[in-house]
Amino acid sequence: MIKKIAHVAIATRSIAVMSEFYKTLGLEIDAIETVRDQKVKVAMMRVGDSMLELVEALEEDSAISKFIDKRGEGLHHISLEVDDIRGHLETLKSKNIRLIDEEPREGADDCWIAFIHPDSTGGVLIELNQKKQGGGAE
Amino acid sequence: MIKKIAHVAIATRSIAVMSEFYKTLGLEIDAIETVRDQKVKVAMMRVGDSMLELVEALEEDSAISKFIDKRGEGLHHISLEVDDIRGHLETLKSKNIRLIDEEPREGADDCWIAFIHPDSTGGVLIELNQKKQGGGAE
Repeated sequence: MIKKIAHVAIATRSIAVMSEFYKTLGLEIDAIETVRDQKVKVAMMRVGDSMLELVEALEEDSAISKFIDKRGEGLHHISLEVDDIRGHLETLKSKNIRLIDEEPREGADDCWIAFIHPDSTGGVLIELNQKKQGGGAE
Repeated sequence: MIKKIAHVAIATRSIAVMSEFYKTLGLEIDAIETVRDQKVKVAMMRVGDSMLELVEALEEDSAISKFIDKRGEGLHHISLEVDDIRGHLETLKSKNIRLIDEEPREGADDCWIAFIHPDSTGGVLIELNQKKQGGGAE
């Protein structure tokens, strides 16, 4: 089951610059996390029951740098919180949906994550996201 | 105040095709609405407290057709529900944020809406959205 939009991720050249704009909207950065294996820094802003995440590359060969080089700054992916990430991946595989991650891997913020390939989603990079305390992914 | 993510809008060539993918994810289309002045058809799927919206062009000169021609299908805009859309627009204007709509206009689903220009938001098309029964916009 899909529970909610966990977050919407935005590729940005500068969290410092963009956080000024979001402050004008009335949003505050609640936490900044470095995700070493993705070579990014992530600034999280709570919006209702979801998060907006500003994602800034730490190195030029990170996927976010490549995304910005190709498409410019902007909306990067949407993350959907699920209660059974493995079940979803099995269902998607059975329907020949192309997956970036065939198995869940560890994401930021103590979650299991897996990305679905935009070729199978009409151009939208979609992350499935399950909280670890929710169980079921291991 | 920003209350929540009202919706995330996805530009698609075919609601019929893409709804099959979202059905595999466990999401159902709750409503389909035609927005004549935007020349689009919008399919709405509830996800937690927010909506995912598939937006399909009805005519070749709609903004969605042009978006897809230029960037391909994919994430189009994010809509933030606010309680005082006029107040937000005044604050944004006072900070020289570029607006597409200087005044609220009527959107789908009985709301007042206004778009902020991506030039001022780091490439993200952001809609502010206020429910009419919330008052304050007229």
